[in-house]
Amino acid sequence: MAKQGKKAIYPTRIENYPEWYQQVVKAADMAENSDVRGCMVIKPWGYAIWENIQKNLDDMFKETGHVNAYFPLFIPKSFFEKEAEHVEGFAKECAVVTHSRLEHDGKGGLKPAGKLTEELIVRPTSETIIGASFSKWVNSYRDLPLLINQWANVVRWEMRTRLFLRTTEFLWQEGHTVHETKEDALEETYKMLDVYTKFAKEYLAIPAIKGEKTESEKFPGAVSTFTFETMMQDKKALQGGTSHFLGLNFAKASNIKFQNREGKEEYAWTTSWGVSTRLIGALIMAHSDDNGLVLPPKIAPLHIVIVPIHRNEEEHRKVLNFIGELTSKIKHLRYNEEKIRVKIDDRDMRGGEKLWEWIKKGVPVRLEIGPRDIESSSVFLARRDKQPNEKQSMNTDDFLNNITSILGEIHNNIFEKALNFQKENTKKIDDKEEFYKFFTPKNKKNPEIHGGFVRSHWCGSSKCEERIKEDLKVTIRCIPLDAEEEKGKCICCEKESSKRVIFSKAY
Amino acid sequence: MAKQGKKAIYPTRIENYPEWYQQVVKAADMAENSDVRGCMVIKPWGYAIWENIQKNLDDMFKETGHVNAYFPLFIPKSFFEKEAEHVEGFAKECAVVTHSRLEHDGKGGLKPAGKLTEELIVRPTSETIIGASFSKWVNSYRDLPLLINQWANVVRWEMRTRLFLRTTEFLWQEGHTVHETKEDALEETYKMLDVYTKFAKEYLAIPAIKGEKTESEKFPGAVSTFTFETMMQDKKALQGGTSHFLGLNFAKASNIKFQNREGKEEYAWTTSWGVSTRLIGALIMAHSDDNGLVLPPKIAPLHIVIVPIHRNEEEHRKVLNFIGELTSKIKHLRYNEEKIRVKIDDRDMRGGEKLWEWIKKGVPVRLEIGPRDIESSSVFLARRDKQPNEKQSMNTDDFLNNITSILGEIHNNIFEKALNFQKENTKKIDDKEEFYKFFTPKNKKNPEIHGGFVRSHWCGSSKCEERIKEDLKVTIRCIPLDAEEEKGKCICCEKESSKRVIFSKAY
Repeated sequence: MAKQGKKAIYPTRIENYPEWYQQVVKAADMAENSDVRGCMVIKPWGYAIWENIQKNLDDMFKETGHVNAYFPLFIPKSFFEKEAEHVEGFAKECAVVTHSRLEHDGKGGLKPAGKLTEELIVRPTSETIIGASFSKWVNSYRDLPLLINQWANVVRWEMRTRLFLRTTEFLWQEGHTVHETKEDALEETYKMLDVYTKFAKEYLAIPAIKGEKTESEKFPGAVSTFTFETMMQDKKALQGGTSHFLGLNFAKASNIKFQNREGKEEYAWTTSWGVSTRLIGALIMAHSDDNGLVLPPKIAPLHIVIVPIHRNEEEHRKVLNFIGELTSKIKHLRYNEEKIRVKIDDRDMRGGEKLWEWIKKGVPVRLEIGPRDIESSSVFLARRDKQPNEKQSMNTDDFLNNITSILGEIHNNIFEKALNFQKENTKKIDDKEEFYKFFTPKNKKNPEIHGGFVRSHWCGSSKCEERIKEDLKVTIRCIPLDAEEEKGKCICCEKESSKRVIFSKAY
Repeated sequence: MAKQGKKAIYPTRIENYPEWYQQVVKAADMAENSDVRGCMVIKPWGYAIWENIQKNLDDMFKETGHVNAYFPLFIPKSFFEKEAEHVEGFAKECAVVTHSRLEHDGKGGLKPAGKLTEELIVRPTSETIIGASFSKWVNSYRDLPLLINQWANVVRWEMRTRLFLRTTEFLWQEGHTVHETKEDALEETYKMLDVYTKFAKEYLAIPAIKGEKTESEKFPGAVSTFTFETMMQDKKALQGGTSHFLGLNFAKASNIKFQNREGKEEYAWTTSWGVSTRLIGALIMAHSDDNGLVLPPKIAPLHIVIVPIHRNEEEHRKVLNFIGELTSKIKHLRYNEEKIRVKIDDRDMRGGEKLWEWIKKGVPVRLEIGPRDIESSSVFLARRDKQPNEKQSMNTDDFLNNITSILGEIHNNIFEKALNFQKENTKKIDDKEEFYKFFTPKNKKNPEIHGGFVRSHWCGSSKCEERIKEDLKVTIRCIPLDAEEEKGKCICCEKESSKRVIFSKAY
């Protein structure tokens, strides 16, 4: 049990942010590195969070008219080569299957055999293999829009990996849609960006900034890429997900044509959009504190954990009885249209130890219930959005009447905190020197936490973008959709500019 | 629209069973072959069925104390080699990743580059890679039982593939558990077999026979494999899923040890169990008829489809109003604890065409509603478990009061039909000549539909098993768990036997 003032996670955020992140993941028992280079094992607590993300996002996709399907894991090399920018973007980091069996090598080991006539790529994203199906599915304007989503694993051979944030294999969803007109496809691209930011706000409690990527940061093969950018507690940006307007590029590559209303054949307009297990990384870094994970209730595997307090067998029995009755009442309640998820932790361990375990795992509400609480028919309640020792006694009826709104309050508090942090650390800068100073670490002991989001003018040239990236490792995160027309001078070259963009260091 | 007497699927089951199967899949728009050898595309209607299977099975796994996690897609070759039987079983048909990128070959194409120091196998099953994690997770008897499940894609390089039944890549769940004692592990093995057969009965409406596999048919590396076998309408068996008691084999291969209650270190007992998208193939072949798919309501993507009937715009408007009100009432009802899934098919097509589409897709209940139905406040109802032209008019209130029990009835009817078919086509045979005759096609025009399940005595020798397999392509499907002790003579060699086993041709 952590002592007064001592924190459960070592090092703290301020001491060593990247290491703090790893320790939070470990303390909450969410994931670990596997023996396969760059691939992680998502442990039950981490996976339960992913299941909640999946379920709720999936509902939102279905509400907006999408259906799920499943396409092959493998992409023939020749499909991959069809879209020139696309292959350049992914060829450098893909797993290549070259053989279809193993045979004995005569030295007690096994060697690859059954060489394939055409190599297969393990999908890094599925535009080209899904396009092959779509070219068969789409014949007439009556077949459009085609609104498909896939939940899948993908592989990108990353050199430097970090649990959830960047792994060779990761889980994601990829939406792929086909439309009759450019306008329809653009509308879909924006719509799904809105779905994502709504999800980020209402489920992950993360404020997001919507914007367009610059030419150099867009998806390989897209006409334009839209992103939602989130701020982590080290003030760096994390791209939460992207929505791509693909124009006719992939329709041409995969021959997706349809007969239009005039009876003429034309290429269709496509989009794609995705979010991944990276969102769990965002979640951790946006909300967690020096005592471990902090979970927004809607995606928490448990809403409430109850720890019985007792000194002897008789008390134990009494307390468990009381908790059992309370729990069955709790289970009738719903939060966010789902049954409240409650667990009684009756393990044979010290109460304090248990409580700290659940703090580190980020459970929103902890209840301690002992003989004295039973006498007054009350519970001793602690909330993960408050200090560990900030507890209050509450009448059980009040508790049952208020638990739903308490969970809602926790969500709002977490969101507000993240939003304030983002606002406090977002600046308009018009002076180049100030800009460079802003992004230069002041504290050598703590180089990770500095900077923030800067809204500055940019002339639109990739040269300036590249220069700033080289000098400061700062990139243009996006051209915000809400950016107002405003005359100014490029922060790098001082040429005229009409809009501010967001600069930041990023994951 | 199919004419009176004519069937929607050509050929019919009796005309050409394997081709009928393909046509049912096609007519219901469930899946298609992809351009990747042996890999299928699961289309939205097929995937929605899989989602319902997943959701309900997942609930059953969680009710029995299991949690989900996710492990790497890739298995290092050296892990694979750790269990001798296991590697022999899977090495002949696995996708081998040898390179980590593609580079330009100077001839306008791409070639594999970045050769890996150790080849990676795309998981055909995950015992060895999950074992590597378990060896870290399990330290003490207090960590046991460890009850984990994974939903994932796996790859086995099959030479002859068929949609859902046998594909190179397929989706499945694999349970992996670790126990303190042999008894605990065996109990888990049986428990999950029970979960599967309960699911088959209550959700898929498929009767299943539980039994143990013979030595030659068991999972490579298992001590014993339990199976549930189901009968298809061509009287062949389909293995629905398996539950393996792995003994200490994989614990030794992966070094899964724990400190027991006496403080001594010992190897742990493990199990694994799985079902896959193959269940969808079983579903199709167990229930569908010559008009297409027949779906048990609990896993049907839609419970009810409503087709408006009208001759002009005014009628159209009136009918849609009426249907809208009815639908909002239907949506308040629940079947199997889930909201009733209803769709209004208002496409601009002939009513008959629509209705046949939904027949072929297997929707349990179809409603036609036109102006006359509105006048009498009734619906015109047809059920997929009855003939297409067998329809009844029903007062809307009666319909709303009875729809849940109608869906339940449909489930029961489908199950009873399948159970009767299985019983009718299961025989005890004690005479070798009769046995051989039973499994020899009588009708040359229709060689696929013959035989059935035969309960015969078997001496236990793999020689006899092999002989029958060679002669008749008939295998021992299982040694049924309910087999009674009974003296008899082996159907092949006439040696003494104490039990009957089930012989059948199989998928």
